[in-house]
Amino acid sequence: MEISAYFPIWDRLTKQQQEKLSDSAVRRDIEKGTVLHNGSMDCLGLLLVCSGQLRACIYSEEGREITIYRLFERDICLFSASCMMRSIQFEVTIEAEKATQLWIIPAQVYQEVMAESAPLANYTNEIMASRFSDVMWLIEQVLWKSFDKRLAAFLLEEAAIEGTSRLKITHEMIANHLGSAREVVTRMLRYFQSEGMVRLSRGTVEIMDPEQLTSLCEN
Amino acid sequence: MEISAYFPIWDRLTKQQQEKLSDSAVRRDIEKGTVLHNGSMDCLGLLLVCSGQLRACIYSEEGREITIYRLFERDICLFSASCMMRSIQFEVTIEAEKATQLWIIPAQVYQEVMAESAPLANYTNEIMASRFSDVMWLIEQVLWKSFDKRLAAFLLEEAAIEGTSRLKITHEMIANHLGSAREVVTRMLRYFQSEGMVRLSRGTVEIMDPEQLTSLCEN
Repeated sequence: MEISAYFPIWDRLTKQQQEKLSDSAVRRDIEKGTVLHNGSMDCLGLLLVCSGQLRACIYSEEGREITIYRLFERDICLFSASCMMRSIQFEVTIEAEKATQLWIIPAQVYQEVMAESAPLANYTNEIMASRFSDVMWLIEQVLWKSFDKRLAAFLLEEAAIEGTSRLKITHEMIANHLGSAREVVTRMLRYFQSEGMVRLSRGTVEIMDPEQLTSLCEN
Repeated sequence: MEISAYFPIWDRLTKQQQEKLSDSAVRRDIEKGTVLHNGSMDCLGLLLVCSGQLRACIYSEEGREITIYRLFERDICLFSASCMMRSIQFEVTIEAEKATQLWIIPAQVYQEVMAESAPLANYTNEIMASRFSDVMWLIEQVLWKSFDKRLAAFLLEEAAIEGTSRLKITHEMIANHLGSAREVVTRMLRYFQSEGMVRLSRGTVEIMDPEQLTSLCEN
């Protein structure tokens, strides 16, 4: 498995730049649940996902959390290398949501290549703009959307990612994704169940009526 | 007033790139209150602020609003040229908060220079990271901070920007900055007044005890 097969715009780098990146990149197999990066850890480097799934989240001082975006195959995580840009003045936690294979590219090497490569710098702009869009979507959700709509959208998104309507997820986990409290999630899921939209059992939420959940999100 | 005096990293562009930018840039005097850009308007171009003050905000479908960041002298507004990057999948409204002098650089020209200039692409990354940091700060405020702390922080920030403790601002305007409702602002300001932190009169909020407001933000 070569980094060249996963790294976007590889062909637009010079031979020398390609060698610099591939010589310094390290392959890692990450177990599900591993915290790869957080505010108090060293600058890990950029993560290039080969397979699996990562999530980026933020924590409050009181330990509440919310998922801000997810990363899948061929995605690059910039914020595990926040030391790379002085204007990145925030800290996210990066966690493996599934067993994940990835390349780690040292921040300094990436920064050096980016300083001389307009294609890589422009591509990095697109990555940042894409994450920015995720966060703008989230802020609109948090500000203007009621919790029932956010929960319905989350369940539908999970079902799409997992390819199943039978989600193995606890109410606590859902609360942590949505920046809410477990009791709030439980109350809303019970309401969804009473309306026939989901069926609840221990550690499982099964979607029974995706159309109704969809129309809930849209109204 | 030359664009070269305001454009950051001007010296790191080639003569040709400098000419391309300065030939296409247009100087404009903008009246206070003008909406320069919103989702339904054409791609205006990048805004380089010479003097004055802009604010970027988002609106809900119901017409509620919140300020996401502000731009001052020598700041560049990227999101009035969101057509420039396909990964920018959100719309902000840009409004002149004060009479503002600025340069407008056509999106296509900027994009062409950025495509070949690693320094400009890297600088654009820094701008985006800086706005991203503003929005991450905001999301943490909205998610985890109570409204009294957010209001106290806003009043102190306004006083710093305006250089006065006597702020000419209505409760409605404060609500629009903070994504809240006028009644909520009025109630909290009256509480601040009863604690001796501010004094209220028509269209004015005067900060009487900045230390107490500061300690409110920090606790």
